[in-house]
Amino acid sequence: MEIPVNAERLWQRHLEMARIGAIAGGGVNRASLSPADRASRALMVRWAEARGFGVFVDPIANLFVRRSGREQSPAVLTGSHMDTQPLGGRFDGMFGVLAGLEALEALEDAGIETLLPVEVVVWTNEEGCRFNPGCMGSMCFTGQHVPADFHDVEDSDGVTFGAALNEALAALPQARRRSFGPPPTAYVEAHIEQGPILENLGKTIGVVSGIQGVCWYEIMVHGQSAHAGTTPRSARQDALCEAVAMIAALQAEFHDPTDTVRFTVGKVVVTPNSPNCVAERVLFTVDLRHPETAILRRLCDQVEAICRGHARHCRLEIRETLTVNACTFDPRIMTLISQQAAALRLPMTVLPSGAFHDALFLQRIAPTGMVFVPCAGGISHHPSESASPADLAAGCRVLAGTLLALAS
Amino acid sequence: MEIPVNAERLWQRHLEMARIGAIAGGGVNRASLSPADRASRALMVRWAEARGFGVFVDPIANLFVRRSGREQSPAVLTGSHMDTQPLGGRFDGMFGVLAGLEALEALEDAGIETLLPVEVVVWTNEEGCRFNPGCMGSMCFTGQHVPADFHDVEDSDGVTFGAALNEALAALPQARRRSFGPPPTAYVEAHIEQGPILENLGKTIGVVSGIQGVCWYEIMVHGQSAHAGTTPRSARQDALCEAVAMIAALQAEFHDPTDTVRFTVGKVVVTPNSPNCVAERVLFTVDLRHPETAILRRLCDQVEAICRGHARHCRLEIRETLTVNACTFDPRIMTLISQQAAALRLPMTVLPSGAFHDALFLQRIAPTGMVFVPCAGGISHHPSESASPADLAAGCRVLAGTLLALAS
Repeated sequence: MEIPVNAERLWQRHLEMARIGAIAGGGVNRASLSPADRASRALMVRWAEARGFGVFVDPIANLFVRRSGREQSPAVLTGSHMDTQPLGGRFDGMFGVLAGLEALEALEDAGIETLLPVEVVVWTNEEGCRFNPGCMGSMCFTGQHVPADFHDVEDSDGVTFGAALNEALAALPQARRRSFGPPPTAYVEAHIEQGPILENLGKTIGVVSGIQGVCWYEIMVHGQSAHAGTTPRSARQDALCEAVAMIAALQAEFHDPTDTVRFTVGKVVVTPNSPNCVAERVLFTVDLRHPETAILRRLCDQVEAICRGHARHCRLEIRETLTVNACTFDPRIMTLISQQAAALRLPMTVLPSGAFHDALFLQRIAPTGMVFVPCAGGISHHPSESASPADLAAGCRVLAGTLLALAS
Repeated sequence: MEIPVNAERLWQRHLEMARIGAIAGGGVNRASLSPADRASRALMVRWAEARGFGVFVDPIANLFVRRSGREQSPAVLTGSHMDTQPLGGRFDGMFGVLAGLEALEALEDAGIETLLPVEVVVWTNEEGCRFNPGCMGSMCFTGQHVPADFHDVEDSDGVTFGAALNEALAALPQARRRSFGPPPTAYVEAHIEQGPILENLGKTIGVVSGIQGVCWYEIMVHGQSAHAGTTPRSARQDALCEAVAMIAALQAEFHDPTDTVRFTVGKVVVTPNSPNCVAERVLFTVDLRHPETAILRRLCDQVEAICRGHARHCRLEIRETLTVNACTFDPRIMTLISQQAAALRLPMTVLPSGAFHDALFLQRIAPTGMVFVPCAGGISHHPSESASPADLAAGCRVLAGTLLALAS
């Protein structure tokens, strides 16, 4: 059944939301539970109430918009987040929320009854830039944490998460309070890709296979500072020289022909960092990601050996600072998404997500999937973040069809 | 005539100066024109005024302590610098300044009148680690540059050299301003060797034959920041990845079996320097030295081509920030130094300098020489830099005798 998604309404709502917390360059700064975030929640509630949808809020201020089904069972859930990075864009998170709302409205416009209720959720604090860590809302909803775990977390002005949470809850008196409740029947999240794969392949729909795992390392190379003019190479313990050899070797080792491994050295700190001084110490980070946990683990197991193999005169310290296993999404949901895209004759591909999303936590308690749409140049977390109205509408049609199939 | 150098006074002054900018491990961090550098200048002026010596400062804040002669002619000049590397030691530069002051005081103690004035100079910014390049003071004094050439150079906090210079000049109201003036009659600089040759040969005095040539480069690699999790390798313009390839290639190319080439990358600055961000920009320095000008030139001519060969997706900017040809010192001054060492029965040898010194620029305008004393393990530019009181006193006696001979 074709669902009459309204591309123009979906686009206008993006533009309207982008005015809340607007910054230079077409971007948005809407920190979690800030006045701007509260304003965007209030607008979402007005749109929901105008269509007669139910509005609920849970103990960590996750906001739910509900279109009832014939049965009173756990809902088919969709959504994303409305908070942004400090120099954020108009689509990261917001597209998943507005595509969910548009799916509900399109079902309503067409008078389509579903068996199960369908809900759109706005997760609290996905980005984690005002209150660290991110994904607090989805972690509490899925039982990984309780809100009290985060009450004392402070933002950079000393405001606690607990205080900001109470303020946000008080600002939404029209939303009915409810507990976290049972797991949803399924969860499907739409999002911009935040990478260039769809654009480069000329595909409109990404059927997300899962979220890749990530390991972070901090590697410290201890050498000996010495005079650049007077110290022969053979007498040096050059921390920078050996760090460069390690980074080059890691790059070579993790260079895979399929371009699936994500290997990044993003941070290098040299001491004393003087042109005519052999480096005493070099700290560098490794960010290593792969969609398959077993492969990621195998790559990670090589990091230390590769570095040690190039520590010829220097001493090495290696710390693993972050470890998150990969997840794979439910094959039935991936199939449903693919079928919707095929029915709409939309070019698609299967791809993993390089970034985290709330779906990472939802997949622990419910069959979960994600739909990606292209973003220009793969750029996100930046005011220049951009997606086309046509791609957003296409992603919304696939989402709506998938939700309808799940709720039937 | 034996000059009554006071070894204990010379040693105590080293210890007193080492308290200004002291860091862990017995070292010193006294960046050029920093508060610590200004404090060491103020202490030098107090010592000079206590003996009735004249105190002068020139337009680039080179500081002069003058003991008058019978004639008003260009002075016999000695001295060195008081700024250090970030993780520097107590003797590099400071020994040449304090040995010069001790020579003046010993002449004064003995009531020895000289025909020509003898002056001790503290050159501004020899090290070049806060403001690039080094030797700004001696380059301006010798007419290679004018101070305005450097006014806009910024340190890593964005403070300009011009602003720091004005502050340093204002902090020395008791020093009389004077122009750069005519070339000195001669220039002799005492310094720790900063290499292991004297120690290995068991010699106390090094008669320096010249200084190897040096070229400095600043190489900026411009890439594009991107999300470490979502951006495939093939879509990246990873400035750090390419900088590492350039540095590794330069290292391989300049690896000579005789270990004569001195190649150092001592400084790397990454932007934004975040573990999960592909690097937008990387700045790195190259310090390249060789005793033969023709060979150094040939090596330098390869730097840009090697870097460009590894700039695959990034844009490159290369600046040559310092170029100094190798120099040989005045044979008459070398002979005078040797005669003083012989008269004092000090074991000596002739050797070249691997480090550059302000003497490199002075030799362009005046007969110039250098006296080296041993430093433990050849280590310098490090907190563990060490020299014995007896060797420092021996070097000071040779310096004082040489200055007296030149001023008579």
